[in-house]
Amino acid sequence: MGASSPTAITLLGQDLAEDVMGEVGFGELAFWLAAQRRPSRGETRVFEAVLAALADHGFTPTAIVTRLTYLSAPDSIQGALAAGLLGGGSRFLGVTEDTGRFLHGVLRSLGGDLPADDASWDEVALRTVRAEREAGRFVPGLGHHVHKQGDPRTPALMRIAREEDLFGPHLSLFEAVGRVHPEVLGKELPLNGAGVCGAALADLGLPIELLRGFALLARTAGLVGQLAEELREPVANDVFLSVDLNNRSVGPTPYTPDPLSP
Amino acid sequence: MGASSPTAITLLGQDLAEDVMGEVGFGELAFWLAAQRRPSRGETRVFEAVLAALADHGFTPTAIVTRLTYLSAPDSIQGALAAGLLGGGSRFLGVTEDTGRFLHGVLRSLGGDLPADDASWDEVALRTVRAEREAGRFVPGLGHHVHKQGDPRTPALMRIAREEDLFGPHLSLFEAVGRVHPEVLGKELPLNGAGVCGAALADLGLPIELLRGFALLARTAGLVGQLAEELREPVANDVFLSVDLNNRSVGPTPYTPDPLSP
Amino acid sequence: MGASSPTAITLLGQDLAEDVMGEVGFGELAFWLAAQRRPSRGETRVFEAVLAALADHGFTPTAIVTRLTYLSAPDSIQGALAAGLLGGGSRFLGVTEDTGRFLHGVLRSLGGDLPADDASWDEVALRTVRAEREAGRFVPGLGHHVHKQGDPRTPALMRIAREEDLFGPHLSLFEAVGRVHPEVLGKELPLNGAGVCGAALADLGLPIELLRGFALLARTAGLVGQLAEELREPVANDVFLSVDLNNRSVGPTPYTPDPLSP
Amino acid sequence: MGASSPTAITLLGQDLAEDVMGEVGFGELAFWLAAQRRPSRGETRVFEAVLAALADHGFTPTAIVTRLTYLSAPDSIQGALAAGLLGGGSRFLGVTEDTGRFLHGVLRSLGGDLPADDASWDEVALRTVRAEREAGRFVPGLGHHVHKQGDPRTPALMRIAREEDLFGPHLSLFEAVGRVHPEVLGKELPLNGAGVCGAALADLGLPIELLRGFALLARTAGLVGQLAEELREPVANDVFLSVDLNNRSVGPTPYTPDPLSP
Repeated sequence: MGASSPTAITLLGQDLAEDVMGEVGFGELAFWLAAQRRPSRGETRVFEAVLAALADHGFTPTAIVTRLTYLSAPDSIQGALAAGLLGGGSRFLGVTEDTGRFLHGVLRSLGGDLPADDASWDEVALRTVRAEREAGRFVPGLGHHVHKQGDPRTPALMRIAREEDLFGPHLSLFEAVGRVHPEVLGKELPLNGAGVCGAALADLGLPIELLRGFALLARTAGLVGQLAEELREPVANDVFLSVDLNNRSVGPTPYTPDPLSP
Repeated sequence: MGASSPTAITLLGQDLAEDVMGEVGFGELAFWLAAQRRPSRGETRVFEAVLAALADHGFTPTAIVTRLTYLSAPDSIQGALAAGLLGGGSRFLGVTEDTGRFLHGVLRSLGGDLPADDASWDEVALRTVRAEREAGRFVPGLGHHVHKQGDPRTPALMRIAREEDLFGPHLSLFEAVGRVHPEVLGKELPLNGAGVCGAALADLGLPIELLRGFALLARTAGLVGQLAEELREPVANDVFLSVDLNNRSVGPTPYTPDPLSP
Repeated sequence: MGASSPTAITLLGQDLAEDVMGEVGFGELAFWLAAQRRPSRGETRVFEAVLAALADHGFTPTAIVTRLTYLSAPDSIQGALAAGLLGGGSRFLGVTEDTGRFLHGVLRSLGGDLPADDASWDEVALRTVRAEREAGRFVPGLGHHVHKQGDPRTPALMRIAREEDLFGPHLSLFEAVGRVHPEVLGKELPLNGAGVCGAALADLGLPIELLRGFALLARTAGLVGQLAEELREPVANDVFLSVDLNNRSVGPTPYTPDPLSP
Repeated sequence: MGASSPTAITLLGQDLAEDVMGEVGFGELAFWLAAQRRPSRGETRVFEAVLAALADHGFTPTAIVTRLTYLSAPDSIQGALAAGLLGGGSRFLGVTEDTGRFLHGVLRSLGGDLPADDASWDEVALRTVRAEREAGRFVPGLGHHVHKQGDPRTPALMRIAREEDLFGPHLSLFEAVGRVHPEVLGKELPLNGAGVCGAALADLGLPIELLRGFALLARTAGLVGQLAEELREPVANDVFLSVDLNNRSVGPTPYTPDPLSP
């Protein structure tokens, strides 16, 4: 990573001032920092497409949290951004990681014997979806509460990955899940954008353990944008006042733990 | 602070298991940890009255933030609490620190010559309020957007401090500010609860630099309470949906920086 | 929770200024906020003993993080405390929650038929430890890297709970685990302090989902103490310099993902 | 910002899937989100050079904090990143914002009458440095504890801004400060990299209030890189153990507040 002497600063073994600044784009640099190898032009394009897909979704809980925290503590931009990122957990931003991890687990279980055509991928996908259903689990990346007829980010990212010759086994399996799941589940669900991002990041060879980290990086850019908008068109105080007005504190009703004996 | 050997754990030089657990209350312990001296029974009572005064104020931004973060990342209670605390900055929770710090600065400027009666405190307070007004600054701890006729926490805390013989120079000066400010400002404002808490903490001899820390400790208990309520009567999802429904993203209207030349 | 009108502030249905401030201790209040019922004197004592047991353990990662963050951003006490709390996750502070949750799950599985004497508790404990071992899982709350011969907090908290007649099924099962596990595991491990705290909190009838929240509340008091010490005897800059000196950035060695095909 | 209907997602008024993903780089998008106008190719290059300059500086407090938090709570990547960002306050990452804000204030005070040549910039700079010195304040962006003979990022960023015809009044004034300050201060200090980044961001017309936000965005990419390295070559546990070994808890020595009277 970074290191410095009195006269030089290196980053990733490069001369920061001469060979990185002005030469390496920010998406490219973020990839490089995480993988410690410089991505190709095509890898950078897929990676930046993922970051764009995840950067901002309007008034999500993370955006509201960043704006409210800025309202309360305007002297601490770092606090407002950090608070927003803390919402990037299992429920909202976690799908990217969950999908990448899930697909990766299935692929590893194949023992190196990866399918060579769509029909074979469909077989693997069918087994996979059946197993999840039998275990009573959802398949990560499947379904979306708004884009019920299809999430437009999914075909877009698949197209970009194909254009750059980076459509690998994670995307292949994810696509096959999209084809075969109605046969098992009895209804057609969309492959969502967060999920396809996880598949694409995994196909880029990035560390599976850090997939959520890339979603959070994308979201940081979105939250800076939310703060820029809040500065110009503040809504946080109205949000606070309307919540305060429309909610009544409950209770005090004593909490009753599970009765352990009858 | 804490230290341990294979057979013993000490905290603040005490045997944790024998002399602290079951013997020292939580407010007393928090005081002890911050001041590294065991508070008297009266000091503990004033300190805990301050913590009670600051623990929870209903649907504040910090409470909303904790609930929304829990909605987004229910697997991370620490994230939900941390996000809420990050709103404890200059605007909402900062008044306690600002007031204590302000009063302390005035008292130090007296060079050891502290007033001995109300009339002399009034003189100091009058000079102080005039100086702030002339400098175009607000006097911290003065005014409240709801309790315009008086914040009930202020006389309560002053009474408790008097009962425990802990009504020191910070509270004396704060009280005098309450008496004399109408003469300068032309209107009567309440001494608010956050402000009186700052004065009382300073009179307890706690570090001025950490006054905000005590407000945050109090608020942590409040936020755990908010989470307990959210578990039983969830409102975060409705808050999110109503914000999403009632707000439109603005723009894109390009940001125009200050014109530096005509 | 909290609510206010121009002339009054209520907290938990009480008049904050008259009936809470100066009357309710901080531990008692924290319990009340979380359970929405006022604890008895004995419940408060056990609860505060738990908070004391978890407040501070010296230079833990959370304490180091709070001090380093304060070094970097001294203007934001809330940021330093929040950063420290974020370390309160699965590995360090999580044992309290994990143990409470684990014991609770076992007790619920008994279908209301709770053991009436030690021999019967031992039977349940034996079954439980065997099942965990067979599943290749650790029993939460068992083992400590320093207190190998016994964690002094464990008997202390058990004694206090017994004195207050609050030694319930969670503590009973935990104690039985301590008696029987050598028979299954072939070696004697201590019941650790974090674990016994989880058992005691569960026996107090507090929400199982929030047990980590109480550990975090205790730790907030400890972190305020760490900041107080850092103000007087700063070590953060030395920590930073020594880490910087003793560690070399690695690489750049390209990350190699799992090979999925041979 | 972002908005979505069942069939389309827009971001900044664009069709996300068609016109942003695969078409807009991540640095370009971050600029666009913050300024709500699409940057030119040259603006993007300068902006990304700034982000590269600020992304990672090795084992800084923020990096150590992220690694220690990940050690403690490996289940919460968002917590580890948020904790690291919380160190992005006044002392370390704040210089970028402070410098931009300072230069902007001076430029605004000129009332639209901006210098047209180096000699006139030198006059403004001389007045400015003198005024700061007389007020006993440091000039932000001047001086560096390692790069005493010059920070290599400074000439690099100035060159890039000139190449892109984006060397505006903030950079001009900053450069002039570099030329004239020895005349006032009696010694030559380097213009540091964090400072020149603030000047460049201000010349790009980005909101002055958010300059710290861009430093934090850059740092988020760096912290993801730190986590990637920690996964492969863990050092956090050794850091923790060495701090624990080399530091002794102080006290308990009672805190003594300022004596207010003799």
